[in-house]
Amino acid sequence: MTSTACERQLHLPAALDRVACLGGGHGLFQTLRAVRALQVPFIHAIVTVADDGGSSGRIRRELGQIPPGDLRMALAALSADTEQGNLWETLIQHRFGGNGALAGHSVGNLLLAGLVDVLGDEVAALDEVGRLCGVRGQVLPMANEPLEIEADVSGLDDDPRVMRTVRGQVAVATTPGGVRRVRLVPHAPQPCPAAVDAIRQADLVTLGPGSWFTSVIPHLLVPAIVDALRETAAVKVVMVNLTAEPGETAGFSAERHIHMMAQHAPRLRVDHVVVDRSAAPSSYEHGHLRRAAAALGADLVLCDMREDSGSPQTYRHDPVKLARALAQTFELGAGEAGALQSL
Amino acid sequence: MTSTACERQLHLPAALDRVACLGGGHGLFQTLRAVRALQVPFIHAIVTVADDGGSSGRIRRELGQIPPGDLRMALAALSADTEQGNLWETLIQHRFGGNGALAGHSVGNLLLAGLVDVLGDEVAALDEVGRLCGVRGQVLPMANEPLEIEADVSGLDDDPRVMRTVRGQVAVATTPGGVRRVRLVPHAPQPCPAAVDAIRQADLVTLGPGSWFTSVIPHLLVPAIVDALRETAAVKVVMVNLTAEPGETAGFSAERHIHMMAQHAPRLRVDHVVVDRSAAPSSYEHGHLRRAAAALGADLVLCDMREDSGSPQTYRHDPVKLARALAQTFELGAGEAGALQSL
Repeated sequence: MTSTACERQLHLPAALDRVACLGGGHGLFQTLRAVRALQVPFIHAIVTVADDGGSSGRIRRELGQIPPGDLRMALAALSADTEQGNLWETLIQHRFGGNGALAGHSVGNLLLAGLVDVLGDEVAALDEVGRLCGVRGQVLPMANEPLEIEADVSGLDDDPRVMRTVRGQVAVATTPGGVRRVRLVPHAPQPCPAAVDAIRQADLVTLGPGSWFTSVIPHLLVPAIVDALRETAAVKVVMVNLTAEPGETAGFSAERHIHMMAQHAPRLRVDHVVVDRSAAPSSYEHGHLRRAAAALGADLVLCDMREDSGSPQTYRHDPVKLARALAQTFELGAGEAGALQSL
Repeated sequence: MTSTACERQLHLPAALDRVACLGGGHGLFQTLRAVRALQVPFIHAIVTVADDGGSSGRIRRELGQIPPGDLRMALAALSADTEQGNLWETLIQHRFGGNGALAGHSVGNLLLAGLVDVLGDEVAALDEVGRLCGVRGQVLPMANEPLEIEADVSGLDDDPRVMRTVRGQVAVATTPGGVRRVRLVPHAPQPCPAAVDAIRQADLVTLGPGSWFTSVIPHLLVPAIVDALRETAAVKVVMVNLTAEPGETAGFSAERHIHMMAQHAPRLRVDHVVVDRSAAPSSYEHGHLRRAAAALGADLVLCDMREDSGSPQTYRHDPVKLARALAQTFELGAGEAGALQSL
């Protein structure tokens, strides 16, 4: 295993027909924009359903449905760049203003909730909105039921050895303590069958970037998703976050992100772990990262993926750079595995 | 002027290409279903925008928009009878359940509100939902701003001569007093230009049935709509309600409905006033009705339009019977005006 430079131009590897992207929230949005930029014919977004905050949390509590927000964002990310696609992307992302009961609800969340009520089927509801948005692919929930995230968190008491249970995505994401482990409630849920099929049939599967404990690792707590990831012939890529997030991963190095994933999914095997150069500037760190990636059976790929910006520096992935990184890692995995050792 | 039997079979007069239906709520819904049954190529629904109750009232107050409910019902009435049309008709009419802030909101109202926010144009928003529903025609608001209805109401005090002002559609529609006159606030509003054009270009214009003071007469309080009704070459038909409504028209005879319309719109001239036979069983009443219709320049057409039902008797128009009545009155107006005198 070695680290690989990421310098070739953006292009689409010939066999990259089906990509499945696992995640949630803004990290998944950026990944989907990147895959859309690669003009992949069929893109599956597979999305966490544990959100309990904001408009999604209100819909979840009021109507007993899966939280629609991250699904809606994925639909927006994949909307066609046409007049109709642009209108519907804008519409579903639009949030009502005012000071009343509707303030803060996004139109797409309410539309999805209505379609789920009427069709009685989350996937059919997402397909209908996908059709309006001109999505080339499918947005799927990780599971067909709303899930909760529960975390073991240290540092909330004076005694640092005391571990407390924190429950709910918002509570875990914003805890002032240190997250040690997360679980799903209910434990080991059934997956959305179409999501499992999408992983099995993919040429490339991405996991992350995104809120590590609340959007990325939850996928690995669904046993059938881990099984599908083990069995698929797809090239599997973990995209590590550019930086730690205040709250759930405060103070985490890139290496610790990878360690946490391996710890939560000891059976997981992937092909590449992609880390932004700026997250690991020294060759000393590269050695640690390589060893962490090896625990997942992966090589380390160092890329430049950060959005260019003035000051203050942003911590968003640039979709074009991300697309280039994905195209390259796919080529590495699909056709140039032998070359990896010598790069 | 005389009364005319309504016995011919349902068929589409050749020149009936464009129909404009003015009203609101359930009465307009039934009329639009009837016109849809006639397979008219282009149907314009022109809808009151003074509702202040329920989901519409909440959206109006929270977002400062025109109340969408009656517009949504018109879109549902005109939805295509296809798989897609049926899904979207069901979806826009669906109301959220639960006990939360969303309970009672219809999906179509929220979708229209979102589109108005995003497009900044009520007609464009309605056209977009109309496209999804497969509407052959257009649903238009009477005016592009929310209006209020204000009524002079007697009988609210011990002294029956005391007249009080009641404001708001719900308050007027449910007043225990007797409504004497209604006004719009703001007074003499600007119409939606497309609604005026639709009236001018129509072959047939219908007014009513529906809540007389809150859905039907408000159209006649927009001066430009009365002007368009005077100038259009269309056959103009007033459809009188089957019965009085508790609240706003409690105790009203069919004759009093017609008198009230003439009193609110002295400049209005129409071709036919259609009354259900059951609303005026005696020939004594027919004489009164004919004189009332004559005040609008119209002849009286007596038809059977009531939905067949067991007991208790319903007070809904049957769309097929209504369609037959409309087709006949159109023929009377368009080609057989000379024959009216001798029928």
